[in-house]
Amino acid sequence: MQQLFYLSDLFGVLVFAISGALMAGRKSMDLFGVLVIAIITALGGGTLRDLILDNHPVSWIRNDTYILVASLAAIGTVLWVRLTRPIHERGLLLADAFGLAVFTVIGTEVALQHNMPYSTAVIMGVMTGVAGGVMRDVICNEIPLIFQKEIYATACIFGSLVFIGLRELATPHWLDTGVAMLSVLAVRLAAIHWHLGLPRFHLLDRD
Amino acid sequence: MQQLFYLSDLFGVLVFAISGALMAGRKSMDLFGVLVIAIITALGGGTLRDLILDNHPVSWIRNDTYILVASLAAIGTVLWVRLTRPIHERGLLLADAFGLAVFTVIGTEVALQHNMPYSTAVIMGVMTGVAGGVMRDVICNEIPLIFQKEIYATACIFGSLVFIGLRELATPHWLDTGVAMLSVLAVRLAAIHWHLGLPRFHLLDRD
Amino acid sequence: MQQLFYLSDLFGVLVFAISGALMAGRKSMDLFGVLVIAIITALGGGTLRDLILDNHPVSWIRNDTYILVASLAAIGTVLWVRLTRPIHERGLLLADAFGLAVFTVIGTEVALQHNMPYSTAVIMGVMTGVAGGVMRDVICNEIPLIFQKEIYATACIFGSLVFIGLRELATPHWLDTGVAMLSVLAVRLAAIHWHLGLPRFHLLDRD
Repeated sequence: MQQLFYLSDLFGVLVFAISGALMAGRKSMDLFGVLVIAIITALGGGTLRDLILDNHPVSWIRNDTYILVASLAAIGTVLWVRLTRPIHERGLLLADAFGLAVFTVIGTEVALQHNMPYSTAVIMGVMTGVAGGVMRDVICNEIPLIFQKEIYATACIFGSLVFIGLRELATPHWLDTGVAMLSVLAVRLAAIHWHLGLPRFHLLDRD
Repeated sequence: MQQLFYLSDLFGVLVFAISGALMAGRKSMDLFGVLVIAIITALGGGTLRDLILDNHPVSWIRNDTYILVASLAAIGTVLWVRLTRPIHERGLLLADAFGLAVFTVIGTEVALQHNMPYSTAVIMGVMTGVAGGVMRDVICNEIPLIFQKEIYATACIFGSLVFIGLRELATPHWLDTGVAMLSVLAVRLAAIHWHLGLPRFHLLDRD
Repeated sequence: MQQLFYLSDLFGVLVFAISGALMAGRKSMDLFGVLVIAIITALGGGTLRDLILDNHPVSWIRNDTYILVASLAAIGTVLWVRLTRPIHERGLLLADAFGLAVFTVIGTEVALQHNMPYSTAVIMGVMTGVAGGVMRDVICNEIPLIFQKEIYATACIFGSLVFIGLRELATPHWLDTGVAMLSVLAVRLAAIHWHLGLPRFHLLDRD
């Protein structure tokens, strides 16, 4: 079970690294840029969470598998796109939703292990899930997608609350983890399928 | 007194969250984006300060009042703008100046409690006051306002120095806190009223 | 020797602060903005490294020489440009390459002192060398140069690996430090001279 969780985590890193590499490609970055953006997208959220929670050592600095997976994913993406033009958009979105689910649950769990109040645990779940993508967009000079497109972070909030609720009911660990991940997935896939979005807040520029 | 200081701190969070929500609105973000930008604007500066000073736990992670106030301020701003179009610009600037004053003094004090040299204490005062706004602008893809408009951070530097000076003179805590906050307010309001700015440094683009 | 290393470090701070001040000038920032961007460019990379490694206190918060050097460099740059128009581009690039060499070796060494795996040590070397410049570009609303122009970070990776290799061979400290710094310098200067760049990854915008 622990093993399965670790593999899911690495899968999340893989998927997020791909999304980072693709964004870097859209900005015509060089190979080093692709690598850095991929790593930041994949590990940025968890790193920020660990810094704020004072949870040292930060996950990837003692275990180089994380960096390795992110780097290989980045290089693989470049080769894949060079060799066989099209990216399977649908597949990528699905994989990304899965990565989001894993990261959200991990973030929430780490916060609970540090005896944080529930509100902080939810924030840490969301942060782990989305902060890497926000960093990717900020460095690439884009307004973060997740603040403008379909429901994304809301799926994290929901899954994080489900996880906390099940934890409170003391269900077995595989059950609360699994159900919480499925909750994130369900909300996210529904949002993609029906193009669900949150209401937006329009304000004219001052001048 | 301690109570008054805590309430001022929360008031600073409230005001900065409003300014974050307004910026998010100008970028047509969705409700989640508004919430995140509001929270980052309100708590980003203090969080960065705590990380650099190794001052754990970071203020808001154990006390959910901070997040609550920032979230309510964000939601309140959206409702307010939806229902009664205009924002009272003048009032907001005044409130923002007050928030700046509180955050500057808090930041300086935290650094002094960690026995930092005075130069670091001033930097921490300024950082607590302005870093949240800089993060807001960077995420929203704007060059930070405070580097270009009227005197803003200079008010923090001044107030921070006043606070340190009075501390050195061992005046009572309510007095050094109060006078330092008034110093920030005075400089900032004067800058707004007379449109005072620092000299700017123009350099033509290289190519 | 230790003394020489410390002076090199301060020289790196000086050079990076100048590059920050020049970028701030290109964005027509005011004097405070120039100061902040200079300080962030000079100290941002090392600060991020220290936070992630949990290496407290962060170098500059207990020793105000760093801030002083960065501030004086910023003010000096403004005065210099005001008084004698042209910046010696060639000289600046050379100085920047030297700063990069020093920061890379320092970052790698700090990581090794914390018993990090080699992959993390290389990342910390690169981070110390380039993250300040990335922060400068992100705050100034530019896509980071180092992801798009000639070989830059690759020089850090190379120098970092050389340093680790010599460390492994237990050569004297002055030798591994010196050779590693020269390696960074050599790669960087060659890249500037022959306009060497990494292959870039182009991807059309999705829509």
